[in-house]
Amino acid sequence: MKENEPAKGVWPPAATPFHADLSIDFERYIAHCSGLLADGAHGLAVLGTTSEANSLDQGEREAVLERLIAAGIAAENLLPGTGTPSIGDTVRLTRHAASLGVRGVLLLPPFYYKGVSEDGLFAFVSEVIGRVGRSNLKIYLYNFPQMSGIAWSPALVGHLIKSFPKTVVGLKDSSGDVAYLNRLLESYPGFAVFPSSEALLLAAMRKGAAGCISASANTQAGAIRALYDGWQGAEAESLSRAASAVRNLMQKFPLIAAVKAVLAERTKSPDWARVRPPLDPLSPAQRKELSAELSNLAAGAPA
Amino acid sequence: MKENEPAKGVWPPAATPFHADLSIDFERYIAHCSGLLADGAHGLAVLGTTSEANSLDQGEREAVLERLIAAGIAAENLLPGTGTPSIGDTVRLTRHAASLGVRGVLLLPPFYYKGVSEDGLFAFVSEVIGRVGRSNLKIYLYNFPQMSGIAWSPALVGHLIKSFPKTVVGLKDSSGDVAYLNRLLESYPGFAVFPSSEALLLAAMRKGAAGCISASANTQAGAIRALYDGWQGAEAESLSRAASAVRNLMQKFPLIAAVKAVLAERTKSPDWARVRPPLDPLSPAQRKELSAELSNLAAGAPA
Repeated sequence: MKENEPAKGVWPPAATPFHADLSIDFERYIAHCSGLLADGAHGLAVLGTTSEANSLDQGEREAVLERLIAAGIAAENLLPGTGTPSIGDTVRLTRHAASLGVRGVLLLPPFYYKGVSEDGLFAFVSEVIGRVGRSNLKIYLYNFPQMSGIAWSPALVGHLIKSFPKTVVGLKDSSGDVAYLNRLLESYPGFAVFPSSEALLLAAMRKGAAGCISASANTQAGAIRALYDGWQGAEAESLSRAASAVRNLMQKFPLIAAVKAVLAERTKSPDWARVRPPLDPLSPAQRKELSAELSNLAAGAPA
Repeated sequence: MKENEPAKGVWPPAATPFHADLSIDFERYIAHCSGLLADGAHGLAVLGTTSEANSLDQGEREAVLERLIAAGIAAENLLPGTGTPSIGDTVRLTRHAASLGVRGVLLLPPFYYKGVSEDGLFAFVSEVIGRVGRSNLKIYLYNFPQMSGIAWSPALVGHLIKSFPKTVVGLKDSSGDVAYLNRLLESYPGFAVFPSSEALLLAAMRKGAAGCISASANTQAGAIRALYDGWQGAEAESLSRAASAVRNLMQKFPLIAAVKAVLAERTKSPDWARVRPPLDPLSPAQRKELSAELSNLAAGAPA
């Protein structure tokens, strides 16, 4: 892929493992990221919600990118989150990521604020782009109003595409709002839209989606890649059903904790289950239930 | 006041003026802060919501404290906000503030996250306190669920007071929820509770409040100080009515922009009206309306 092509395909938002003292376990992290790519992920949407990026300090966020690249992961296969409520911190993180040559950045809105105007949000993005000052910067808007309290409305997305056509090139939608997703896909052909769930991927691909950035891709990157590659093939519906069943099961639990619980079980490393406060890990009962239901699913038992 | 006594009285959350390039106008800022103290403020709750603290980058947040202290404002008269969604960034800002000798810090919950458990929030505060590692640290919880998406519930406040009796010593309540405020005042005598509005101050003082931390104190610190000093006197009701009328008028507008518009008019410095995106300044029509209504109020016209 050329650096300036928009991202496409399966970009898992890699979960971040922690040591007992809550510091990042880089060895485990790099192994996980490399494994996702080996399983078929096209790239990694690191430092998003599933990565607990907003629980990392700024130095850690920079270190994550530097360590992955030093470990041999191509910068063009990284799509890190860099959005904060502050223009200055966002510019610092975005400039750092861009200087490393990442494919682009995922931009949360300034999420402390609520009820802000579209003009205010436009001004925020405009200031960030101007201050980063790199002509090859690529921004993917990150829409997750349930967490950020601010949505990127379709009208504002259109305004940003029109004003910054070479920079604002895509959007990850974690809202789960299919009408919103479809409206973006229909309104802005060529704009790289990623639903946040493999359960929405097939229908979205048929409307022109770029791929998906899904938390549960941390546990089934290969299955999602098969669906992405085969969405026009004879197996598309059955690939979609299988991947969706896993996703739908996992999201009955707190999703980040569930992803980490599955990784802990699969790697026989209880440390994987650790999250940073204020998040909680799954309870033992939840872990047991999730594990049993996933086993049933794998054994082909009725859901 | 001794350094370790809990804060009491009128602590305006000082607004932060910006130059045209959006950098902090320190000269104007220091003049404003000094003026508030000269008008009768007991101290300054800098780096809160009204200060647009979450629109400042981390270096600016540290610089604000250093510059105020260098300008001669006593550290013990400062109560800066230091809460972020990340334990690491919060520890860094809190440690920096504590090392300068501030009276205490105002702690927002980890506001990116929504729907987190009380155990998770307790663990967050506990990690921050442990990692800051200063026995003289004083924390004032900052409750503003409309903006942060997370409330400090009375049960959790009680748990924190019991667990960290020398550290968790107060709370600023910006919720506007009088039942919540009263519940804290009744449940935790001696805990320093500050409503965020002078319109609630008199009733709250009668129930044992510590004072108030109000955005509109940026424009009427003296009037609020008079109310605070006179809450048991013959003039209490009329002082409360006068201060409340100004507050109630201002909060019909976006409050931060309104505070800055009043300061701009009063100092004949249009620059004061500037806010950082995503916030918007008042429109010319709003400024005119606010100005006219404040003049009417000052002239004693019926509200």
